[in-house]
Amino acid sequence: MSRFDHRKATVKLQLKDAAGNLLANKEVKADQTNHKFLFGCGAFDVQGVVMPEDLKFPGFDEERMKKMKEASKKRMEKFVKLFNYGTIPFYWGGYERKEGQTNEKMTMDSAKWLKDHNIKVKGHPLCWHTVCADWLMDYPNDVILDKQLKRIHREVGNFKGLVDMWDVINEVVIMPVFDKYDNAITRICKEYGRFKLVKEVFEAAKAENPGATLLINDFNTSQAYEILVEGLLEMGVPITAIGIQSHQHQGYWGKEKLLQVLERFSHFGVPIHFTENTLISGDIMPAYIEDLNDWQVDEWPSTPEGLERQANEISEMYTELFANPLVEAITTWDLTDGKWLKAPSGVLTEDAEEKPAFKALMKLVHGDWETHETLKADDNGIIELTGFKGEYELNVDGKATKITIDAGMNDVMQVVI
Amino acid sequence: MSRFDHRKATVKLQLKDAAGNLLANKEVKADQTNHKFLFGCGAFDVQGVVMPEDLKFPGFDEERMKKMKEASKKRMEKFVKLFNYGTIPFYWGGYERKEGQTNEKMTMDSAKWLKDHNIKVKGHPLCWHTVCADWLMDYPNDVILDKQLKRIHREVGNFKGLVDMWDVINEVVIMPVFDKYDNAITRICKEYGRFKLVKEVFEAAKAENPGATLLINDFNTSQAYEILVEGLLEMGVPITAIGIQSHQHQGYWGKEKLLQVLERFSHFGVPIHFTENTLISGDIMPAYIEDLNDWQVDEWPSTPEGLERQANEISEMYTELFANPLVEAITTWDLTDGKWLKAPSGVLTEDAEEKPAFKALMKLVHGDWETHETLKADDNGIIELTGFKGEYELNVDGKATKITIDAGMNDVMQVVI
Repeated sequence: MSRFDHRKATVKLQLKDAAGNLLANKEVKADQTNHKFLFGCGAFDVQGVVMPEDLKFPGFDEERMKKMKEASKKRMEKFVKLFNYGTIPFYWGGYERKEGQTNEKMTMDSAKWLKDHNIKVKGHPLCWHTVCADWLMDYPNDVILDKQLKRIHREVGNFKGLVDMWDVINEVVIMPVFDKYDNAITRICKEYGRFKLVKEVFEAAKAENPGATLLINDFNTSQAYEILVEGLLEMGVPITAIGIQSHQHQGYWGKEKLLQVLERFSHFGVPIHFTENTLISGDIMPAYIEDLNDWQVDEWPSTPEGLERQANEISEMYTELFANPLVEAITTWDLTDGKWLKAPSGVLTEDAEEKPAFKALMKLVHGDWETHETLKADDNGIIELTGFKGEYELNVDGKATKITIDAGMNDVMQVVI
Repeated sequence: MSRFDHRKATVKLQLKDAAGNLLANKEVKADQTNHKFLFGCGAFDVQGVVMPEDLKFPGFDEERMKKMKEASKKRMEKFVKLFNYGTIPFYWGGYERKEGQTNEKMTMDSAKWLKDHNIKVKGHPLCWHTVCADWLMDYPNDVILDKQLKRIHREVGNFKGLVDMWDVINEVVIMPVFDKYDNAITRICKEYGRFKLVKEVFEAAKAENPGATLLINDFNTSQAYEILVEGLLEMGVPITAIGIQSHQHQGYWGKEKLLQVLERFSHFGVPIHFTENTLISGDIMPAYIEDLNDWQVDEWPSTPEGLERQANEISEMYTELFANPLVEAITTWDLTDGKWLKAPSGVLTEDAEEKPAFKALMKLVHGDWETHETLKADDNGIIELTGFKGEYELNVDGKATKITIDAGMNDVMQVVI
């Protein structure tokens, strides 16, 4: 028994060649090529890769644009080496700066690039009070709600097949009492209430893509969020996964808190995604800061101890989460350092160098938790393969084929190589 | 304008004698005899007043029983002097120690005694994981839920007319995760979920007494409780008042926290009751104690400073609550010192002496907030009376009658004296 047995399955395969001959007593190499589990990361850099050659940013000359594109490419090369899952931005305020003028083309290209690289894509988020479109505030609340729902229909509908996972609504616990600045979404959440708003946005997303994975997502991991989710599930809101943020700029939660949070959200039996995980490789932010956004620094460098600490913490955290049967996904929020709050929160440096945390994850994701076996088929060409769930390549005599191992099966699966 | 204008109303009365003659130009004395607002207190001592003469308690001889009865009488005399509203116990574990053997008779006598003394009665509570009946644990969860609902039908039905206010369910936020000891109610709350259980118990109470005031009640005043209430209201659970406990054994909340809590629960527009208020007149309990029940002391005396502090705090708190239009009731939990946790938490000493807090409340409830006016009727026998809402006695020429002032009226009300 290992803590990860539930992540594995055993299958029996009977191997034949194209002519139907049993591949009896052959040596079979089975190499896992992808995980069922979603090892994710913020994939915002993909936009730099797919952006049109003639795109101009204010203050960026041609040389600088070229450098940005090259940097993005280098980063995304590392991304696909480690991760199989990426989050791309749909912040309304950025996606539709002026009403009716969306960033759909480049976002679609981003999603396609990821799909072409075998990366599953999640859109983030469809409804949130932050980075919200200012022009919405020109409308009365009933119109804002209507536009919010239409926006969900538009994005979920247009991206169906490319993006089938969505952070439908973000940070609902604080949403109606958020008081940093006026915004359209806080207004409607205050007027209609959290439950009604969540219900409506989920039903809009579900109607457009019934098979999609639909998440609620929050940084609040207290009983308040638990009770919110409990009520929503009781009302039949089609939440397919509970999203938990874990931005640990103020220090690693530690195993105890991590297990407490898992316990708090496990009793629903609904899959859990760690949607936004941050562990930093520099000095940690003081505990007295309540809103992480209030911590504005000129620079926030990594330290030698910090780099080692980040790698250790990320290993422990991923191990605990991978061991919990309800957890289906973990997303490291920042691919590279120096993004949000300038934090040293990436698994890569700004120059796309692999940090110790990157190597630690490589060791787990593509080492300890990845199956590579050499087996010998029996007289009937049958092999029994036990491995981590996901996609595999089978090789016999220089010929290859692909299979997927998910749940275990008693029947013998026929495989033609 | 005063902060309490919403507690007052103005009525025009045309006064006539029994023969129908206008009482023109007469001097009219208007004396408020009761408040619409509920100034309440735990009325557990009423049981000592109504208990049968032949009742025996283990270890109590006749003399001691007699003393207890006398002490209870003395206490309840003070009760009716100050309060117009009382909470009586329906803890299932005490009310029905053995299945089928209830304390209905004495509880009914208690409620009648209070009603006879013009005291409105609330039953507390119908569903709670603490002081729960142990014999329930012999049953499977579906039977426990069934017995819980039947219990509600029985009590609410049998006491209808005497008890039309109920703490239907107590401390739901912690209920399913309460882990101090096993009990039947935590079991069913864990199995069926908070929302379903609350919905069922409220619907049972509502079905039995549709006009009753039905409260949910909690010591948790955080966002978790707010979101619970929000979801329940969204589901149409017939909550007619939100109950907030405020046991301040660890020190007075202060005005800031009080206003925050009011703000948090005001946006529903549902009436708020402060159901269990405690302010103590001795040293306060250390802040590190998480469950108040963990603070076990041999004695907990009042101090001179504590007595003054308690009086000041109770005055400030009642003033803030009376000023909030949504607050309909405040209950001081302990009538006398030395009850729960032995705390000096009463408005009376154990010997029923009036503490400074009692006198401070008398000054507000029967002083500043009570209307006594002498008016002169005009040529048509009409007076215009503005006063705190409640019951009044009008006196003209040694004759008296009673009226009730609630909402203001434009029409002239005819009053026969």
